[in-house]
Formats: sequence, structure tokens, C-alpha cells
Amino acid sequence: MTTLLTLSIKKGDPQPIYVQIYRQIRELILAGRLGAETRLPSSRALASELGISRSTIVTAYEQLLSEGYVRSTRGAGMFVMPLSPDHLLHVRNSGELEIHSSTKSTIPDSPKPKPFDIDTALFELFPAKDWTRRLAASWRREHPDLLSFHDPFGHMPLREAISSHLSLWRGFECAPENIMITSGTSDAMDLIFRVLAQPGDDIWMEDPGYEIIRHGIRSNGMNVVAVPLDEAGFDLGIAKEIAPKAKIAIVTPSRQFPFGTIMSLTRRLELLDWAHHSGGWIVEDDYDSEYRYEGRPFPAMAGLDEHSNTLYLGSFSKVMFRSLRLAYLVCPPHLTDGFRETISKQGTKASFVAQPALADFMESGAFGAHIRKTRRVYAKRLVHLQSTLSTQAEGLLVAPPQTSGLHLVAGLGDRISNHMTDKDIVEAARGNNVRVQALSDYYQNKPCLQGLVMGFAGHNETAIDDGVSRLVASIKSLLS
Amino acid sequence: MTTLLTLSIKKGDPQPIYVQIYRQIRELILAGRLGAETRLPSSRALASELGISRSTIVTAYEQLLSEGYVRSTRGAGMFVMPLSPDHLLHVRNSGELEIHSSTKSTIPDSPKPKPFDIDTALFELFPAKDWTRRLAASWRREHPDLLSFHDPFGHMPLREAISSHLSLWRGFECAPENIMITSGTSDAMDLIFRVLAQPGDDIWMEDPGYEIIRHGIRSNGMNVVAVPLDEAGFDLGIAKEIAPKAKIAIVTPSRQFPFGTIMSLTRRLELLDWAHHSGGWIVEDDYDSEYRYEGRPFPAMAGLDEHSNTLYLGSFSKVMFRSLRLAYLVCPPHLTDGFRETISKQGTKASFVAQPALADFMESGAFGAHIRKTRRVYAKRLVHLQSTLSTQAEGLLVAPPQTSGLHLVAGLGDRISNHMTDKDIVEAARGNNVRVQALSDYYQNKPCLQGLVMGFAGHNETAIDDGVSRLVASIKSLLS
Repeated sequence: MTTLLTLSIKKGDPQPIYVQIYRQIRELILAGRLGAETRLPSSRALASELGISRSTIVTAYEQLLSEGYVRSTRGAGMFVMPLSPDHLLHVRNSGELEIHSSTKSTIPDSPKPKPFDIDTALFELFPAKDWTRRLAASWRREHPDLLSFHDPFGHMPLREAISSHLSLWRGFECAPENIMITSGTSDAMDLIFRVLAQPGDDIWMEDPGYEIIRHGIRSNGMNVVAVPLDEAGFDLGIAKEIAPKAKIAIVTPSRQFPFGTIMSLTRRLELLDWAHHSGGWIVEDDYDSEYRYEGRPFPAMAGLDEHSNTLYLGSFSKVMFRSLRLAYLVCPPHLTDGFRETISKQGTKASFVAQPALADFMESGAFGAHIRKTRRVYAKRLVHLQSTLSTQAEGLLVAPPQTSGLHLVAGLGDRISNHMTDKDIVEAARGNNVRVQALSDYYQNKPCLQGLVMGFAGHNETAIDDGVSRLVASIKSLLS
Repeated sequence: MTTLLTLSIKKGDPQPIYVQIYRQIRELILAGRLGAETRLPSSRALASELGISRSTIVTAYEQLLSEGYVRSTRGAGMFVMPLSPDHLLHVRNSGELEIHSSTKSTIPDSPKPKPFDIDTALFELFPAKDWTRRLAASWRREHPDLLSFHDPFGHMPLREAISSHLSLWRGFECAPENIMITSGTSDAMDLIFRVLAQPGDDIWMEDPGYEIIRHGIRSNGMNVVAVPLDEAGFDLGIAKEIAPKAKIAIVTPSRQFPFGTIMSLTRRLELLDWAHHSGGWIVEDDYDSEYRYEGRPFPAMAGLDEHSNTLYLGSFSKVMFRSLRLAYLVCPPHLTDGFRETISKQGTKASFVAQPALADFMESGAFGAHIRKTRRVYAKRLVHLQSTLSTQAEGLLVAPPQTSGLHLVAGLGDRISNHMTDKDIVEAARGNNVRVQALSDYYQNKPCLQGLVMGFAGHNETAIDDGVSRLVASIKSLLS
């Protein structure tokens, strides 16, 4: 059956028409008004009806497809998917990534970072001249404002630029008034714990997960409740069994850290439902979602939240550089006053020195261009690392399919998994001047998987080749 | 009797000779080797013995005199003082401050801050062009380092510059390795509590004191123990009575916040002795000690500590600007590893963007020049506010003698003290576009004094005149 969709297109809207269509259909699906197995109208029919080009409809449909909201059956059209985890987790892997990049020859080697450091700044790709020019210009232009009184939520033009960025890249709308600039993720977490939790509260946290956040929970006197993951991500049922009265769930739905799995739509909706009915809070740590190499990034979970129980955390550490120490917290509107009261009492920890320059960098388009440029290069490096591992480390390390992120997690292959632990390899590799991290170190509870966390974004192809060859030698030395 | 002092002068030493002499005599006094009433050799005799100019000796003696280590009796010479509080608290007030400044006519009015805001950035005095040039130059010169890996303790050249600054201005020596750059004072405090205290611990804090620090103590799950002050500062006897098992004492010995009193030498030594024997810690918050308008600033308490139980906190908020969000913590050497472990786990909150520029600003001498320049202007503004209050607000407000700091605390005069509270005045003044703060708001316990905390550093003479006249009108409106 074909449902006649009620869609409205605003030509003067700042949102591209394909985004308007994509969003309206997505909302109809999430609201249950377009049930499972409903067939969407053909792109040709819808284009004709709306009086717009067919390619616009195709783009919108592609996006719904890539996010698992619909499936395509050759010849029969597009059908709405049931809200189950399987489809969101499906990674399209239709042949090689197409990368057109001429940057390789112009990127000099960086002497300091070692493969496969994660969190490596990509200074060879960073437009340092442009950044420096904007930094100086912002100080020439705005120095009285920079030196004078300040909103502890941060520089308003930067918060406006972030609001636009989130609308365009992360598919959700938020007012600049509700965005607070923080000094990195751990600062934002400290604030969240101080505003929303009490010492002794249980806080759900994915296991494996990010140690810095666990440290923050404990430093604030709360309990880290480690929730094991399955392939659909954070499992609410298990979480409730372990700690039924948890106040906050900290999750990485767009790309689980460190695994890279995507939390399924069903799981997202379950968790949102929990927050709505229990009075709990969700913290969505969206640390590197700009780096998805096929299709658009998955929309943020906060954009699905109709009851404003999700606190969204974004960071400039990955796209810009870590030592900038700027991140941001999007508060649900009714919590903004509470956060403002607390930040006023303790003072902001986020430096204003670079905030106007960063706002300028974002507004000018340089920020988006930098994401696109680095995305091309990182995608290439990911493919290179995957193929190098599959040829050079066959049977030793297993790199799963992956089309996003800045690091991968390689499992221990059949030939070695009974002979050594991931920590043994980390130790041996360190002696060979290669830095990898043990997956088991990311666990709070007893690790159920062993593996190596390997950053690739900061390392060019020569470094990757060299790193893999030394890593393989390190592993073989443990076998003999 | 005359004691023959054993002094050694190093001509090649980076410390000026007068500083070498001053320090060695100070150490002899503190070590008890120069007892009370010992007469120092005459400046002429000592100069001749050491083969240096007499004026160098006079400068060293003046410093000892201004810090209360010796007293001068006309015609009879200099005598070592007993280690009692009275002399350290004595403020020399020999006539008018001598200020030679031609900056008045060139300082434009600032539209935004209102008198008598404290924490007002002095953007009309800040060398913004020079700063901007250094900021851009540091990025052109050091951008790979700025983007790449970082020591979570901060940029080493900045820590080296701070070490030199402390040696020269604050009279104590510390290795750059033990200096950690933090994002403001509250960040440093959070770290201190996390490393040195447990939830439930008692922490001594001066009352009245700085609300942001009290908030930090509570946020970290510890108890604020408010210790009342007398004119010699923090009273260890009372503190021990209230909370005998306190772990940490947070004090502002150089200029009590907000009163501006100086902790006496006896009290300092008592507190150091407590820390040494009880295993407790002293946090010395040295927030604005660069701004002393007569003589050199008093040396930091940390410089007296022979057992490394004092954590010294300095800030760039006053000398530079608050939105820079850079402060520093000098760790006792044996604690540095513990702080390093914690900061590595949680990540630094201090941005690196401006650290190389600030190091350059300090090393070049621009920082010291800016202190000297602002000091002249602030001293003039202080005198102007004091004299305006004494003529325009006679009987209404009482400004005590003061020759340091960036704000003063005016007491309520006889004519009004029975008719209104400081909070009433704050409220009435706000309606008249004047911002003052109620001293009673700085207390945790029941306030034992009423007064107005008035910032003067950020307000020129016209603004001060205008502010006082509107403040007086506000008070009179409450009287009628």
C-alpha cells in the first residue's frame, strides 16, 4: 500500500529541501504514523507531487536508508523498517571507499607522535595560518569584550555557531541560550554531576568506556555502574537489573567508545522512555561523530528526545585540537537556570582567549571545510590500516568492518588469542616504539574481549605501514 | 651588642645583591640565629666590609623594615623584632603615596563596568596590541607544539617564567617541574581536594572568605569549617577548637580576602608548625599580592615553609585578565607525582592556546612592566577613593587605611550603622546604577561586621567621583 505523505516544503527555509523532507518523514516514522512495511511513494511520484527535482527526493531517501529508517527492495521501492536494532547497526560496505585526495604528497611526517597513538593532533592538516590570522584578528577587533565582563556560559557568537553546526551536522535544534561552553568533556561532566546528582548516586556507564569519565564520576562521589554492551549498544534491561535506581545514563550512541558500534534506534527510544518515566537523565557524549565516512552522520539522540531529558556533549578536541580545551554542553531548556546558578557560583573554567576566533572559524565555513578535508584523509587512512592489517597481520589481528571514527579496535586472531593478552602485546610493542592500547584497560569489570585500540587519524600511510610491521614483529616475538 | 653577620654575596647570581642580603638576614632571623633586639651592623659598616655600595645595604634593610623583621630607632640603628604579629601588621603611612603617572589623561572611559565592580578587567591599561602580536607570533612559531602532545602540567616555558616571577616578586624558590598550570583558582582547588582530601574531611577556611572556594569544598564533598579572623589573620587556636582534625587550611596570608589584613609572622609560623606536626596541608591563595603600593610585596608564606606542607596558588586573573582562565599551583615536590597521576586521569582543563604567548609576555619583561604600570594607576585610584569617601561620605562610610589591593572594605559609619544593613545599601545602590557588595555576604557564619566591598582598580577618577556621589545619595535615601 502507498501512504500519501503530508509534507510541507518551505523554499525560503535555511534548511536544504532534502533535509526538510528527510526530517518530516523521520518524524512520521518515529511518531508511529508511518508503520513498519509502509511503502514510501516513489521518488519520481513524490518529486512530481511536490514540484521539486527528483534528485532531491533521492537524497532524502538515501539518508533515511543509511540511517536504517527504511529499506530498499530492488524494483519494489522503499519500505519503513520496524524499529529494531539490526538495521541501524548494518554498515553498508559496498566496495572501496571513494576518496579523491591529493593531500598525501604534501603532508609532511610528524616527528613526535608514534603510531598508533589516539588523540593525536593532526597538525599537518590543520590550517594553522588561517587559524592564527583569525585569532589575531579577533583580538584586534574584540579585545575590550575579551577583557571585560563575560557570560559564564561562554561567548555568544560561538554558541550561535555551535547551534547552527548541530542543526546541520547532527540533526537537532537547540537555542544558543541553552549551550554552555566548557573546558573539555571532563569539565562538562563535573558540572552535570554537581547539578543533577548527589554523592552516593548510581550512574550507568557503558563498559568498556572512557576512563576519564569514570574518574569524574568517582571524584564527585558517585558510583560507576558498569553496564555490559551487546551489538546494539547500551542495554537498558541489564542496566536496570544491576542498578534500578540510577540517576544518569552516560552513553555514546553515535559511536560507542571504544568499540564504534551504533546504538540502535530501539535502544535509543527505550532509554529516552526510561528517562521520561523515571525522572532520570541521559548524557549523550558525541565525541567524534563528525567522522563518518559514508552518508551523513547519524543524527544525535538528543534530537529524538521529545521530553528534554538528554544532555548533549560535543567537543572541539577531535575536529580542532585537544589543547584548545573547549567543549560544549547543550542543556535541556528547563535545566539551563540550574546550570547557570552553579557555573556562576564556581566560575567558568573555559578560557575566552580563542572563543571569538573559533566562532569566526565556524561561521566562515573554514570549520566545515576542515572537517571535510580531514574526513577524506582519515577515511583513506582507515582503509589503509584495515588492508595493511588484513595482509600483514593475518591470523594475528582482526580488524572489523568500520566506516567511521578516528581509531579502530583490532581483535586478537586465532593464532595468538590463546598465547597472549592484549596487555602483553601493548608491552612488547612499546619496546618496539609502537603505541597501542589494550582494550581490556577500557573495562571497569572483568574484560569480556581482548583487543588493541589503534588510532589511525594522526598517522600517515608510511607511519601506518611502519607501525603495523613493528607491531607484527612484537606479536611474533611473544609467540616464539 | 653588634653581631658579625656571615653573609655571602655572589656577584654573578641572577638575584640582585640587595635581595641576596635581605634573604640571608631574613633566614638568620627566622632560624633564631639573630634573636630579638639584636642590633644589625650599620649600613656603612656592612657596605665597607662586603665591598659593596651603601645604598644596596640600605635597600635590603628597608625591605626587612617594611616586612616587620626589624625596627629602626633614630640614631641607634636597626634592631631585630621579636616574632610577634603586631609589627607585620603595621602599615607605614608616612604621608601621601608618591605617584608619578601621566596616564590619567590618556585613559578613556570604559562603558560597561559600573563602579565599584570588583574583578573588572582594565582593558584601557592592558597592552592589547603587544599581547595580540605575541599571541599570533607564538602560533606562527610554535603551532606544531601547540597542536601536538602536551604535558598536563602545562607549557614548560610558562612554568619556567612563573618560577622566575615567584623568585623575584614573591621571595620563594620553586622548580618549574613542581608548577602546574590550571584553569583558574577553582580548578586548582578541585585538584587539591581530589588529591589530598576525602569526602567528609574538615577544611579550615577564613571567615569571611571567598565564596567560590567554599562552593568548591562543598562540591567535592568536604565540610567548610569557618574560622573567624582577628587583626592578625587566621587564628590556629580557634580553628583547632572548632575542628581539631581538619586536613587542610586555606588561607590568604598576604592580603586576607576580602579584608586585606596581613597574616602576622607568628601566625604563619604557628600554622606551618601545625602542618608539619599534624600532617595537614596549607593552601596559600596568593590572589593579588602583586598589588602592594609601598615597599616590596610581602614574601609568600610558602617561602617560609621548610617542610613542604604549603601549596601555593597564584593567578593571572588580576594582572592579566580574568577570562584568560590561567592560574598555577606550586606543589610541594613530594606531592608532584600524586598531582601528576590525578591530572593525567582527568585531563587538564587549562587551555594551551595562550600559554606560549603568556610565557613570552613574562620573559620579555612586558608582564613586570604591566604590573608596575597598573600599580601606579591603582595606587592613585585607591588614594582617590579613600579621600573621596572621607570627604563625601563622612559619617556614612569609613575607609580604613590601606596601601594594597584592588578593592577596599568600607565600614558603616556611626550615622547609619543603626539604621540599615550593608545589604540594604547594596540594594539601594543597585537602583542608582552603582554596584557594591555586602561584606556580610562573604561570611559563612553570622557576620560580625557590616561593610561594603568596593573595587577601585577598574574605575578611573571620574567614575569613582560619580560612583561615590550616587552611593551617598542611595544611603541618604535610606536614612530619610
